[in-house]
Amino acid sequence: MPHIDLPPLPGIAGLLAGYPQTAGPLNDLAQTLLRGPSPLSPAQRETIAAYVSRRNECTFCAETHGAVARRLGADDTDPLMEPLLAIADRVRVDGRSVTPGDISRAREAGADDRAIHDTVLIAAAFSMYNRYVDGLATLTPTDPAVYERHAHNLASNGYLPG
Amino acid sequence: MPHIDLPPLPGIAGLLAGYPQTAGPLNDLAQTLLRGPSPLSPAQRETIAAYVSRRNECTFCAETHGAVARRLGADDTDPLMEPLLAIADRVRVDGRSVTPGDISRAREAGADDRAIHDTVLIAAAFSMYNRYVDGLATLTPTDPAVYERHAHNLASNGYLPG
Repeated sequence: MPHIDLPPLPGIAGLLAGYPQTAGPLNDLAQTLLRGPSPLSPAQRETIAAYVSRRNECTFCAETHGAVARRLGADDTDPLMEPLLAIADRVRVDGRSVTPGDISRAREAGADDRAIHDTVLIAAAFSMYNRYVDGLATLTPTDPAVYERHAHNLASNGYLPG
Repeated sequence: MPHIDLPPLPGIAGLLAGYPQTAGPLNDLAQTLLRGPSPLSPAQRETIAAYVSRRNECTFCAETHGAVARRLGADDTDPLMEPLLAIADRVRVDGRSVTPGDISRAREAGADDRAIHDTVLIAAAFSMYNRYVDGLATLTPTDPAVYERHAHNLASNGYLPG
Protein backbone atom coordinates (compact mmCIF):
# COMPACT_ATOMS: atom_id res chain seq x y z
CA MET A 1 0.00 0.00 0.00
CA PRO A 2 1.39 3.43 -0.87
CA HIS A 3 2.60 5.60 2.02
CA ILE A 4 0.31 8.44 0.90
CA ASP A 5 -3.16 8.62 -0.65
CA LEU A 6 -2.82 8.26 -4.44
CA PRO A 7 -5.04 7.49 -7.43
CA PRO A 8 -5.12 3.68 -7.92
CA LEU A 9 -2.62 3.60 -10.77
CA PRO A 10 0.62 1.58 -10.81
CA GLY A 11 4.12 2.92 -10.19
CA ILE A 12 4.87 6.48 -11.21
CA ALA A 13 1.45 6.81 -12.93
CA GLY A 14 -0.27 7.24 -9.55
CA LEU A 15 2.27 9.89 -8.52
CA LEU A 16 2.00 11.82 -11.78
CA ALA A 17 -1.81 11.79 -11.57
CA GLY A 18 -1.91 12.72 -7.88
CA TYR A 19 0.75 15.44 -8.03
CA PRO A 20 0.33 17.22 -11.38
CA GLN A 21 2.56 20.21 -10.55
CA THR A 22 5.70 18.11 -10.31
CA ALA A 23 4.44 15.76 -13.04
CA GLY A 24 5.00 18.52 -15.63
CA PRO A 25 8.80 18.84 -15.29
CA LEU A 26 9.18 15.09 -14.56
CA ASN A 27 7.44 14.20 -17.85
CA ASP A 28 9.36 16.91 -19.73
CA LEU A 29 12.65 15.57 -18.42
CA ALA A 30 11.82 11.97 -19.44
CA GLN A 31 10.71 13.09 -22.90
CA THR A 32 13.81 15.25 -23.48
CA LEU A 33 16.23 12.64 -22.14
CA LEU A 34 14.71 9.56 -23.78
CA ARG A 35 13.22 10.98 -27.01
CA GLY A 36 14.89 14.35 -27.63
CA PRO A 37 17.94 14.92 -29.88
CA SER A 38 20.87 12.69 -28.87
CA PRO A 39 23.57 10.64 -30.58
CA LEU A 40 22.00 7.69 -28.73
CA SER A 41 18.85 6.13 -30.18
CA PRO A 42 15.68 5.94 -28.08
CA ALA A 43 16.28 2.16 -27.85
CA GLN A 44 19.82 2.70 -26.50
CA ARG A 45 18.54 5.28 -24.00
CA GLU A 46 15.65 3.08 -22.83
CA THR A 47 18.18 0.25 -22.37
CA ILE A 48 20.20 2.46 -20.01
CA ALA A 49 17.01 3.41 -18.12
CA ALA A 50 15.97 -0.23 -17.81
CA TYR A 51 19.46 -1.34 -16.73
CA VAL A 52 19.74 1.27 -13.96
CA SER A 53 16.20 0.48 -12.76
CA ARG A 54 16.97 -3.25 -12.73
CA ARG A 55 20.18 -2.73 -10.77
CA ASN A 56 18.25 -0.51 -8.32
CA GLU A 57 15.66 -3.29 -8.06
CA CYS A 58 12.82 -0.92 -8.97
CA THR A 59 10.53 -3.54 -10.50
CA PHE A 60 7.95 -1.15 -11.94
CA CYS A 61 10.58 0.97 -13.75
CA ALA A 62 12.71 -2.02 -14.85
CA GLU A 63 9.76 -3.93 -16.32
CA THR A 64 8.35 -0.85 -18.01
CA HIS A 65 11.53 0.46 -19.62
CA GLY A 66 12.77 -3.05 -20.46
CA ALA A 67 9.55 -3.60 -22.42
CA VAL A 68 9.86 -0.18 -24.11
CA ALA A 69 13.48 -0.91 -25.12
CA ARG A 70 12.43 -4.24 -26.69
CA ARG A 71 9.58 -2.58 -28.60
CA LEU A 72 11.99 0.04 -29.93
CA GLY A 73 14.35 -2.65 -31.20
CA ALA A 74 17.12 -2.64 -28.58
CA ASP A 75 20.11 -4.66 -29.87
CA ASP A 76 21.80 -6.92 -27.31
CA THR A 77 24.91 -7.12 -29.51
CA ASP A 78 25.45 -3.33 -29.81
CA PRO A 79 29.15 -2.89 -28.81
CA LEU A 80 28.56 0.68 -27.58
CA MET A 81 26.26 -0.45 -24.79
CA GLU A 82 28.75 -2.32 -22.59
CA PRO A 83 30.94 0.72 -21.79
CA LEU A 84 27.88 3.01 -21.48
CA LEU A 85 26.16 0.62 -19.07
CA ALA A 86 29.40 0.42 -17.07
CA ILE A 87 29.33 4.23 -16.69
CA ALA A 88 25.62 4.12 -15.83
CA ASP A 89 26.26 1.57 -13.10
CA ARG A 90 29.02 3.72 -11.58
CA VAL A 91 26.69 6.75 -11.59
CA ARG A 92 23.90 4.68 -10.07
CA VAL A 93 26.09 3.83 -7.07
CA ASP A 94 28.00 7.12 -6.68
CA GLY A 95 28.75 9.73 -9.34
CA ARG A 96 32.26 10.18 -7.99
CA SER A 97 33.15 6.58 -8.90
CA VAL A 98 33.24 7.23 -12.67
CA THR A 99 36.92 7.00 -13.76
CA PRO A 100 38.81 8.48 -16.73
CA GLY A 101 39.27 4.84 -17.82
CA ASP A 102 35.50 4.36 -17.95
CA ILE A 103 35.23 7.45 -20.14
CA SER A 104 38.09 6.33 -22.42
CA ARG A 105 36.49 2.95 -22.99
CA ALA A 106 33.23 4.62 -23.99
CA ARG A 107 35.05 6.95 -26.40
CA GLU A 108 36.93 4.01 -27.96
CA ALA A 109 33.54 2.35 -28.59
CA GLY A 110 32.35 5.49 -30.40
CA ALA A 111 30.75 7.63 -27.70
CA ASP A 112 31.16 11.40 -28.03
CA ASP A 113 30.75 14.01 -25.28
CA ARG A 114 27.02 14.19 -25.80
CA ALA A 115 26.58 10.40 -25.60
CA ILE A 116 28.58 10.34 -22.35
CA HIS A 117 26.58 13.28 -20.99
CA ASP A 118 23.27 11.66 -21.87
CA THR A 119 24.32 8.34 -20.35
CA VAL A 120 25.28 10.00 -17.05
CA LEU A 121 22.10 12.08 -16.91
CA ILE A 122 19.83 9.13 -17.76
CA ALA A 123 21.49 7.07 -15.01
CA ALA A 124 21.14 9.99 -12.60
CA ALA A 125 17.52 10.63 -13.57
CA PHE A 126 16.54 7.00 -13.05
CA SER A 127 18.28 7.15 -9.68
CA MET A 128 15.55 9.74 -9.02
CA TYR A 129 12.55 8.06 -10.67
CA ASN A 130 13.35 4.72 -8.98
CA ARG A 131 13.53 6.38 -5.55
CA TYR A 132 10.33 8.36 -6.15
CA VAL A 133 8.40 5.22 -7.16
CA ASP A 134 9.75 3.01 -4.37
CA GLY A 135 10.12 5.68 -1.66
CA LEU A 136 6.35 6.17 -1.65
CA ALA A 137 5.65 2.43 -1.99
CA THR A 138 3.56 2.76 -5.14
CA LEU A 139 1.69 -0.20 -6.60
CA THR A 140 3.79 -2.75 -8.52
CA PRO A 141 1.67 -4.91 -10.85
CA THR A 142 2.66 -8.55 -11.23
CA ASP A 143 0.79 -9.14 -14.51
CA PRO A 144 3.25 -8.78 -17.44
CA ALA A 145 0.37 -7.60 -19.64
CA VAL A 146 0.16 -4.37 -17.62
CA TYR A 147 3.76 -3.53 -18.50
CA GLU A 148 3.30 -4.46 -22.14
CA ARG A 149 0.29 -2.13 -22.44
CA HIS A 150 2.13 0.67 -20.67
CA ALA A 151 5.24 0.08 -22.83
CA HIS A 152 3.19 0.06 -26.03
CA ASN A 153 1.87 3.50 -25.14
CA LEU A 154 5.31 4.89 -24.18
CA ALA A 155 7.01 3.41 -27.25
CA SER A 156 4.33 4.92 -29.52
CA ASN A 157 3.64 8.25 -27.85
CA GLY A 158 6.54 9.09 -25.52
CA TYR A 159 6.25 10.73 -22.12
CA LEU A 160 4.15 13.82 -22.71
CA PRO A 161 0.51 13.38 -21.68
CA GLY A 162 -2.43 13.78 -24.02
CA MET B 1 38.81 18.26 -14.80
CA PRO B 2 35.34 17.44 -16.15
CA HIS B 3 34.98 14.22 -18.14
CA ILE B 4 33.47 16.16 -21.09
CA ASP B 5 34.06 19.60 -22.58
CA LEU B 6 31.98 22.16 -20.66
CA PRO B 7 31.83 25.94 -20.21
CA PRO B 8 34.17 26.89 -17.31
CA LEU B 9 31.42 27.26 -14.71
CA PRO B 10 31.26 25.40 -11.38
CA GLY B 11 29.09 22.39 -10.59
CA ILE B 12 25.76 22.10 -12.32
CA ALA B 13 26.13 25.60 -13.84
CA GLY B 14 28.58 24.26 -16.46
CA LEU B 15 26.20 21.43 -17.31
CA LEU B 16 23.15 23.67 -17.59
CA ALA B 17 25.05 26.10 -19.84
CA GLY B 18 26.59 23.38 -21.98
CA TYR B 19 23.43 21.28 -22.36
CA PRO B 20 20.50 23.72 -22.59
CA GLN B 21 17.91 21.18 -23.79
CA THR B 22 18.02 19.17 -20.58
CA ALA B 23 18.62 22.36 -18.55
CA GLY B 24 15.03 23.44 -19.19
CA PRO B 25 13.25 20.58 -17.38
CA LEU B 26 16.01 20.34 -14.75
CA ASN B 27 15.54 24.01 -13.84
CA ASP B 28 11.74 23.69 -13.95
CA LEU B 29 11.87 20.71 -11.61
CA ALA B 30 14.11 22.53 -9.10
CA GLN B 31 11.88 25.62 -9.20
CA THR B 32 8.66 23.62 -8.75
CA LEU B 33 10.06 21.40 -6.02
CA LEU B 34 11.91 24.06 -4.02
CA ARG B 35 9.81 27.19 -4.64
CA GLY B 36 6.38 26.05 -5.86
CA PRO B 37 3.30 25.51 -3.67
CA SER B 38 4.01 23.12 -0.77
CA PRO B 39 3.17 22.84 2.92
CA LEU B 40 6.97 22.99 3.42
CA SER B 41 8.65 26.39 3.32
CA PRO B 42 11.46 27.05 0.82
CA ALA B 43 13.87 27.02 3.81
CA GLN B 44 12.63 23.58 4.90
CA ARG B 45 12.91 22.26 1.34
CA GLU B 46 16.41 23.69 0.83
CA THR B 47 17.41 22.07 4.13
CA ILE B 48 16.34 18.66 2.77
CA ALA B 49 18.25 19.33 -0.47
CA ALA B 50 21.38 20.35 1.45
CA TYR B 51 21.13 17.36 3.82
CA VAL B 52 20.82 14.79 1.02
CA SER B 53 23.68 16.44 -0.89
CA ARG B 54 25.88 16.44 2.23
CA ARG B 55 25.14 12.77 2.92
CA ASN B 56 25.93 11.98 -0.74
CA GLU B 57 29.18 13.96 -0.32
CA CYS B 58 28.37 16.18 -3.29
CA THR B 59 30.32 19.23 -2.13
CA PHE B 60 29.07 21.65 -4.77
CA CYS B 61 25.39 20.89 -4.08
CA ALA B 62 25.78 20.67 -0.29
CA GLU B 63 27.61 24.01 -0.03
CA THR B 64 25.21 25.73 -2.40
CA HIS B 65 21.92 24.55 -0.88
CA GLY B 66 23.26 24.84 2.68
CA ALA B 67 23.99 28.51 1.99
CA VAL B 68 20.57 29.01 0.35
CA ALA B 69 18.81 27.41 3.35
CA ARG B 70 20.66 29.74 5.77
CA ARG B 71 19.76 32.80 3.68
CA LEU B 72 16.10 31.74 3.68
CA GLY B 73 16.12 31.48 7.48
CA ALA B 74 16.31 27.70 8.02
CA ASP B 75 15.55 26.90 11.69
CA ASP B 76 17.76 24.25 13.30
CA THR B 77 15.18 23.77 16.09
CA ASP B 78 12.20 23.04 13.78
CA PRO B 79 10.77 19.75 15.16
CA LEU B 80 9.33 18.74 11.79
CA MET B 81 12.75 18.46 10.20
CA GLU B 82 14.13 15.45 12.10
CA PRO B 83 11.51 12.95 10.85
CA LEU B 84 11.56 14.46 7.35
CA LEU B 85 15.36 14.23 7.15
CA ALA B 86 15.13 10.62 8.37
CA ILE B 87 12.80 9.84 5.42
CA ALA B 88 15.10 11.76 3.06
CA ASP B 89 18.09 9.72 4.20
CA ARG B 90 16.22 6.45 3.62
CA VAL B 91 15.25 7.57 0.11
CA ARG B 92 18.83 8.67 -0.58
CA VAL B 93 20.09 5.14 0.11
CA ASP B 94 17.18 3.09 -1.32
CA GLY B 95 13.56 4.12 -1.73
CA ARG B 96 12.41 0.71 -0.57
CA SER B 97 13.90 1.28 2.90
CA VAL B 98 11.26 3.85 3.95
CA THR B 99 9.09 2.17 6.63
CA PRO B 100 5.51 2.82 7.81
CA GLY B 101 7.12 3.83 11.12
CA ASP B 102 9.14 6.56 9.37
CA ILE B 103 5.91 7.87 7.82
CA SER B 104 4.03 7.74 11.17
CA ARG B 105 6.75 9.75 12.91
CA ALA B 106 6.55 12.42 10.22
CA ARG B 107 2.75 12.58 10.53
CA GLU B 108 2.98 12.88 14.33
CA ALA B 109 5.32 15.86 13.85
CA GLY B 110 2.71 17.52 11.62
CA ALA B 111 3.54 16.32 8.10
CA ASP B 112 0.61 15.74 5.73
CA ASP B 113 0.62 13.65 2.55
CA ARG B 114 1.93 16.51 0.48
CA ALA B 115 4.81 17.22 2.87
CA ILE B 116 5.77 13.54 2.80
CA HIS B 117 5.49 13.47 -1.01
CA ASP B 118 7.62 16.59 -1.38
CA THR B 119 10.26 15.26 1.03
CA VAL B 120 10.57 11.99 -0.91
CA LEU B 121 10.71 13.73 -4.27
CA ILE B 122 13.28 16.32 -3.12
CA ALA B 123 15.48 13.51 -1.75
CA ALA B 124 15.05 11.57 -5.00
CA ALA B 125 15.74 14.64 -7.15
CA PHE B 126 18.95 15.47 -5.29
CA SER B 127 19.97 11.83 -5.71
CA MET B 128 19.86 12.82 -9.41
CA TYR B 129 21.44 16.29 -9.28
CA ASN B 130 24.30 15.01 -7.07
CA ARG B 131 25.06 12.17 -9.50
CA TYR B 132 24.86 14.47 -12.53
CA VAL B 133 27.29 16.97 -10.97
CA ASP B 134 29.77 14.37 -9.68
CA GLY B 135 29.33 11.77 -12.45
CA LEU B 136 30.74 14.24 -14.98
CA ALA B 137 33.41 15.51 -12.55
CA THR B 138 32.35 19.15 -12.76
CA LEU B 139 34.39 21.90 -11.14
CA THR B 140 34.03 22.24 -7.34
CA PRO B 141 35.15 25.68 -6.09
CA THR B 142 36.94 25.80 -2.74
CA ASP B 143 36.32 29.52 -2.11
CA PRO B 144 33.26 29.93 0.17
CA ALA B 145 32.53 33.29 -1.46
CA VAL B 146 31.62 31.50 -4.70
CA TYR B 147 28.87 29.58 -2.91
CA GLU B 148 27.62 32.66 -1.08
CA ARG B 149 27.28 34.56 -4.35
CA HIS B 150 25.52 31.63 -6.02
CA ALA B 151 23.24 31.17 -2.99
CA HIS B 152 22.39 34.88 -2.90
CA ASN B 153 21.17 34.62 -6.48
CA LEU B 154 19.19 31.39 -5.89
CA ALA B 155 17.64 32.68 -2.65
CA SER B 156 16.57 35.90 -4.38
CA ASN B 157 15.60 34.67 -7.83
CA GLY B 158 15.02 30.92 -7.70
CA TYR B 159 15.98 28.42 -10.35
CA LEU B 160 14.53 29.81 -13.56
CA PRO B 161 17.12 31.59 -15.74
CA GLY B 162 16.87 35.22 -16.78
